[in-house]
Amino acid sequence: MLEELQEVLSRDIELDPDRLLLVGVSGGPDSLCLLDALDRLGYRVIAAHYNHQLRLEAGQEAIALGEFCSNREIPFTSGLGDVPAMAKEQNQSIEEAAREGRYRFLFEEAASREAQAVAVGHTADDQVETVLMHFLRGAGLAGLSGMPVRALPNAWSDQIPLVRPLLHVWREQIEAYCRGRGLDPIYDASNLDTTYYRNRLRHELIPYLESFNPAIRRILWRTADVLRGELSIVTLSVEAAWEECLLAEGREYVALSKRALLGSHRAMQRHMLRRAIERLRPGLRDIDFAAIERTLDRLSDPKPQARIDLSAGLALHFESDRLWVANWGAELPRGDWPTCFADPKALEIPGEMALPEGWTLAIHEELDLQRALVEAKENTDPFQAWLSLDEVAGSLSVRTRRAGDRFKPLGMEGHSVKLAEFMINQKIPLRARESWPLVCADEEIVWVPGVRLAHPFRITAQTQRVIQLRLFKINRS
Amino acid sequence: MLEELQEVLSRDIELDPDRLLLVGVSGGPDSLCLLDALDRLGYRVIAAHYNHQLRLEAGQEAIALGEFCSNREIPFTSGLGDVPAMAKEQNQSIEEAAREGRYRFLFEEAASREAQAVAVGHTADDQVETVLMHFLRGAGLAGLSGMPVRALPNAWSDQIPLVRPLLHVWREQIEAYCRGRGLDPIYDASNLDTTYYRNRLRHELIPYLESFNPAIRRILWRTADVLRGELSIVTLSVEAAWEECLLAEGREYVALSKRALLGSHRAMQRHMLRRAIERLRPGLRDIDFAAIERTLDRLSDPKPQARIDLSAGLALHFESDRLWVANWGAELPRGDWPTCFADPKALEIPGEMALPEGWTLAIHEELDLQRALVEAKENTDPFQAWLSLDEVAGSLSVRTRRAGDRFKPLGMEGHSVKLAEFMINQKIPLRARESWPLVCADEEIVWVPGVRLAHPFRITAQTQRVIQLRLFKINRS
Repeated sequence: MLEELQEVLSRDIELDPDRLLLVGVSGGPDSLCLLDALDRLGYRVIAAHYNHQLRLEAGQEAIALGEFCSNREIPFTSGLGDVPAMAKEQNQSIEEAAREGRYRFLFEEAASREAQAVAVGHTADDQVETVLMHFLRGAGLAGLSGMPVRALPNAWSDQIPLVRPLLHVWREQIEAYCRGRGLDPIYDASNLDTTYYRNRLRHELIPYLESFNPAIRRILWRTADVLRGELSIVTLSVEAAWEECLLAEGREYVALSKRALLGSHRAMQRHMLRRAIERLRPGLRDIDFAAIERTLDRLSDPKPQARIDLSAGLALHFESDRLWVANWGAELPRGDWPTCFADPKALEIPGEMALPEGWTLAIHEELDLQRALVEAKENTDPFQAWLSLDEVAGSLSVRTRRAGDRFKPLGMEGHSVKLAEFMINQKIPLRARESWPLVCADEEIVWVPGVRLAHPFRITAQTQRVIQLRLFKINRS
Repeated sequence: MLEELQEVLSRDIELDPDRLLLVGVSGGPDSLCLLDALDRLGYRVIAAHYNHQLRLEAGQEAIALGEFCSNREIPFTSGLGDVPAMAKEQNQSIEEAAREGRYRFLFEEAASREAQAVAVGHTADDQVETVLMHFLRGAGLAGLSGMPVRALPNAWSDQIPLVRPLLHVWREQIEAYCRGRGLDPIYDASNLDTTYYRNRLRHELIPYLESFNPAIRRILWRTADVLRGELSIVTLSVEAAWEECLLAEGREYVALSKRALLGSHRAMQRHMLRRAIERLRPGLRDIDFAAIERTLDRLSDPKPQARIDLSAGLALHFESDRLWVANWGAELPRGDWPTCFADPKALEIPGEMALPEGWTLAIHEELDLQRALVEAKENTDPFQAWLSLDEVAGSLSVRTRRAGDRFKPLGMEGHSVKLAEFMINQKIPLRARESWPLVCADEEIVWVPGVRLAHPFRITAQTQRVIQLRLFKINRS
């Protein structure tokens, strides 16, 4: 066993024998075996024990463990937690609170002593039980691939790895090792109560499954190992897709590209959405599966419902090419949209009008009519237009939209449409529509900058007076 | 149920109601429900029944089914197979032979009638049982993701999809449907015997697992669905990696790039190797896991064992950057290596010597010594060299290597090495070494084309006579 362990330590875990390694020790056979084996292999270990104060004899056991280490000249440190109080405070089960208190202690100790890693005694049997537990509770690929032999980052640190050198060693081997080495582990009598579910799994379910396949334990261990490999492939793909999808990220929001999402498989879309949620709610356990599926169903909908409520205080907003995942009521950053004062302001010819946020509307008369015709025809900048002044009776002005506005888009032969609907069809984001500048002749909309000229104001070979309009932002053009 | 089914049919399966659809019908509740529902939804169906001749009453049942279809004006076709004889012939279990005979019949019928797909009646319960079965037997991601709702290519066709429209419908729903529609399914009494394992799973294991999690069936169905999504991500990644890795492929061999493999995750390496094996042994079920792991362990070994035996009549060969997976004794294609006659042949100056396979060795004297010095210094083509004739006492010749050959590589200050070891270090493939041309002055090796000049024959500012040597192949340079 020692030889195999040495190989795992140096090849898979990449531990340095000369740097300090903190070993979490409960006193049970697994952790005692781990401590003893690492010490014999010449690793610089420190034993760390956490007293959960769940049993009367726990204090006694901590002292015995300290003595064991002292006899072996292994440094020893211990911590104390009032788990029942912690559980009550955090509204957790005793088991959860014990686990969290213990790992927090181990990683704090490791950090303060600059240990290279925290090692714990999980065995191959623990791995199998973990996989089974996830299988029964419903899990994705990550759950079914069990525990990794080396985890960094982990839930407690992004600097110090959590390592499990015994993950390939079976409990029988460990008990034989303890007997052979004369080690005297503590068998926690309360184990059967605190982790009832896991114990039923161990003592009932696994033996039962062995009647279907006697090799079930080895099979499930292998399954975890193979799936962990597949997980690493998926993770790499997800990383690459995230780079493609992410448009913006803040403390209260994540914006994903709808176009990039639509170019991916459904499974990848699911990952992107889950990841966006995880960014905003890092600890969240139960992401609402149905809400994610509903959202994905709507991705290809050209006019999706603007907002979908997710659980956990999050909402989804569709906005032209953006899919926002954000806190309810979060202020989302504005796009680089043109914006305008609500009240109409008269435009002079020639002239420049300063609009909010650095936007400028410039007008001048184009005297070379031939040139204007050519330029208007060849124009590709939607924020630039040539229009016939012949059709303008009163004066030109700029304003934002009003209820009931209609518009005759160029190319629709004078047909009039509702401006509100036209803006939606043109994928102007909801928040942008409100303050979008509209150039008007009296009440009639002449030009929706960035979108379309009005049909009656187009220039033709018969036009006598032509003006050129240009909307621009200093840091834009 | 009909509405949901309609959605699955048009959205997930993409069936065309106006094109013929062949429905495999056993007469049991699942397939009868499927046939009835598709017919009601207006699909152009034909019922296809296969009589396995495993039970006395089977002939009777086929006739009853034909009558049912005739009453409903559904076209009906049936096939007959002597399954026990097939099983014996193919050395298969009765269940396997029945399955193979049935599907072959369905796909042959579908092909001859130009049906758009073969539909079968697998239910959500079948899906759960399949996942459990794979879990117990040991399976990778593909096994744990169960059956797809639409499979193309599948084991029987790469033209006609196999579809499972009822994969999201539970057996209870189907039985309620049958009762509601007054359908009278056949309950196959022998079912309990022929698929003992699956029945134990259905009637014992699943109810037992429900004592751990009452929602286990829905959980496992969802797990399959989620894992199928992950599988699609892995499959895309594997496709892309395969494009990177594959160097050559023939009927008897596949060559992978060692460099590309080393640049991938272990899990991806595993996929590449398994895929290479699958290309050569398409049906192979049990690929030797340990042999694959052993091979991967050796990938980064600079001098791996040249050949590793795999099971199934396959062997692995390492050859410089190539990893060959091939039939035992397969003739592997040669690389584009230079090659030579075994016996020495005298070289003339100037002159050209034709070598085998279109290679030519050209020699001429370079009279401009200054230029020779510059060109030799700047040369980047290893198949071209300038050497000092001052050091050549006798005549130049070209030959292949001999036992005991030594060589003084340029840059090693006249130090002599074993040619055999030098060639290995220079990564000349084993098969190439034997016939590699060597330019000699009497017995001494002057130049190993493509690799290195000999130190004593380098040109310096003191050199009086210089020759230029060039080895080339017509389709190469």
